[in-house]
Amino acid sequence: MTTQGQVITCKAAVAWEPNKPLAIENVQVAPPQAGEVRIQILYTALCHTDAYTWSGKDPEGLFPCILGHEAAGIVESVGEGVTEVQPGDHVIPCYQAECGECKFCKSGKTNLCGKVRAATGVGVMINDRKSRFSINGKPIYHFMGTSTYSQYTVVHDVSVAKIDPKAPLDKVCLLGCGVPTGLGAVWNTAKVEPGSNVAVFGLGTVGLAVAEGAKAAGASRIIGIDIDKKKFDIAKNFGVTEFVNPNDHDKPIQQVIVDLTDGGVDYSFECIGNVSVMRAALECCHKGWGTSVIVGVAASGQEICTRPFQLVTGRVWKGTAFGGFKSRSQVPWLVEKYMKKEIKVDEYITHNLSLSEINKAFDLMHEGDCLRCVLTMLE
Amino acid sequence: MTTQGQVITCKAAVAWEPNKPLAIENVQVAPPQAGEVRIQILYTALCHTDAYTWSGKDPEGLFPCILGHEAAGIVESVGEGVTEVQPGDHVIPCYQAECGECKFCKSGKTNLCGKVRAATGVGVMINDRKSRFSINGKPIYHFMGTSTYSQYTVVHDVSVAKIDPKAPLDKVCLLGCGVPTGLGAVWNTAKVEPGSNVAVFGLGTVGLAVAEGAKAAGASRIIGIDIDKKKFDIAKNFGVTEFVNPNDHDKPIQQVIVDLTDGGVDYSFECIGNVSVMRAALECCHKGWGTSVIVGVAASGQEICTRPFQLVTGRVWKGTAFGGFKSRSQVPWLVEKYMKKEIKVDEYITHNLSLSEINKAFDLMHEGDCLRCVLTMLE
Repeated sequence: MTTQGQVITCKAAVAWEPNKPLAIENVQVAPPQAGEVRIQILYTALCHTDAYTWSGKDPEGLFPCILGHEAAGIVESVGEGVTEVQPGDHVIPCYQAECGECKFCKSGKTNLCGKVRAATGVGVMINDRKSRFSINGKPIYHFMGTSTYSQYTVVHDVSVAKIDPKAPLDKVCLLGCGVPTGLGAVWNTAKVEPGSNVAVFGLGTVGLAVAEGAKAAGASRIIGIDIDKKKFDIAKNFGVTEFVNPNDHDKPIQQVIVDLTDGGVDYSFECIGNVSVMRAALECCHKGWGTSVIVGVAASGQEICTRPFQLVTGRVWKGTAFGGFKSRSQVPWLVEKYMKKEIKVDEYITHNLSLSEINKAFDLMHEGDCLRCVLTMLE
Repeated sequence: MTTQGQVITCKAAVAWEPNKPLAIENVQVAPPQAGEVRIQILYTALCHTDAYTWSGKDPEGLFPCILGHEAAGIVESVGEGVTEVQPGDHVIPCYQAECGECKFCKSGKTNLCGKVRAATGVGVMINDRKSRFSINGKPIYHFMGTSTYSQYTVVHDVSVAKIDPKAPLDKVCLLGCGVPTGLGAVWNTAKVEPGSNVAVFGLGTVGLAVAEGAKAAGASRIIGIDIDKKKFDIAKNFGVTEFVNPNDHDKPIQQVIVDLTDGGVDYSFECIGNVSVMRAALECCHKGWGTSVIVGVAASGQEICTRPFQLVTGRVWKGTAFGGFKSRSQVPWLVEKYMKKEIKVDEYITHNLSLSEINKAFDLMHEGDCLRCVLTMLE
């Protein structure tokens, strides 16, 4: 039985309202329109950005919605004019689109494609400014242009990376967000050179990927900073060479790092989303050249501050989104690197559950032992 | 009569205490010790940094002191071990040293030489941690390692740029601070490319030098922002193509610039020292790649703030000191560029007075019509 052109009814985890448990519902998923792709999601992971929107603290969060943005699946059908993927292709949905044609894509300076942002930012598809998800006729918003907590989802064609069909989808789903964000922050945004000293604030998945990226770039010291000292044993496997727990020191953490490194690090990365830590990360950089990259996402309305003297004396403050990777072009390349064992992926997966256990998976995520929990979407 | 090895008594403008008129005094200038150079200052200009310290708002300001850091003169004598200059050489004293040997100089990443900073920051010479200036035995502090409001001054040899003796000292004295700071912010720190859109906040000497540097770099639009609309006529001569007066708009100035440039400028420069303007300068940059450079010096204790989202979406926040120029290596090169008429200098000089009129010169500086006032030091 072909499903092409038909509405598909499938299971999805719906966030009806902020901070209430997600509900597994039968959702109707409309066929893809022009420029759209319907994907059967086979595996999805959970990320803190999902939890942030779910919490209600994201002022742009819209409810009811289907969260999820780190996943992998197989194309079920494509809408009119879609040429770059076809049914059966293995794909990773990308919350950061890449159209190749907009001002941003053509600039050669950024990965922040602007083509569908106006629609994905408000939970709809750009073609008719409507959602493809509904329950008994009531529309359910999309999220980040991906909505991967559903067995089927519809995304814009500019948001689909076609990958090697031999890649294990239960692993490479992680290449949809956290791991590329960390690796790319080092390789694309900071451009860490061999011999550099690096500080990584926060040793979750993104921080560990930063450490891994820094090790691959030839950094000589990779200082991991976290208030959970259990993280150090794990972090060593990802390249962290020294561990600092701010709670072990009376001095501000930036001063601790400056003292430890004869003036500061060459590069620092904030992988938490805490504006005070962002300041510390900047201020622990070496005068004259130290570069700090904000990777974590702070809560809405919060601000970063420092004395301008920090910048006038040569420090640079930057940020990164999806690690600066161009999604459709470079996610397949990351998959290849994984297949050649040049980057880790399996090691970030600490838990495997099924879609029906998604609330438990979110509970796990807030515990220190969990890096990534991957959900099986098939029943 | 040789003065070498002798104490020289000469005229200098002494700041006895904050915010009190400078007093022209007979000052004793000790001979240069090892690694030091005594310079007869022939011309000095005034800069806002002098006024800032004089005002008492600079918590590192020490009194009594001899201010001044933008000047030109002739070497009178040198201390032991000084090989790179000799009596009679025409020189520009440089508040930013360049030793070529320290971690900073060897990094290849910054001009912020650290060799004598510990002494110049506290108003003394590094050799014996004492001042070479005194009045009847009472020491007078040095300022910024230059103290050019004196007919003779003593500086560290790493702080002296030897220049073409054919260069007019009454003009090239400006290459000791403001003009290189603006040009270098564009050429070295931002690295503006041809075709770029540029915003310059504050159209004093430094802002005009930014405009000049941007024009030379091939910028296609150079938007000058100032609350004094008289500045626009002058600014056109330095390359400013459009003028915006924040007082003419109800919207925040960053929004005005974003609207004017279809999303923001490629590069912005804050040349005032106002932390609110620093924020506006960052936030008027284009998403994805816009780079903002802090050039102005803010008052002590003030902080810059923004939402981290500004950086995560691709803007970069930097700063510059002396425009990133390596002083001893590159000031002579700037002098050559001036001699070849490749950069303006004369055009920044709006007033000429003598040392005895220095208080009047400071009054002029705070008026809108004055860019640079050059003082003749000879009586």
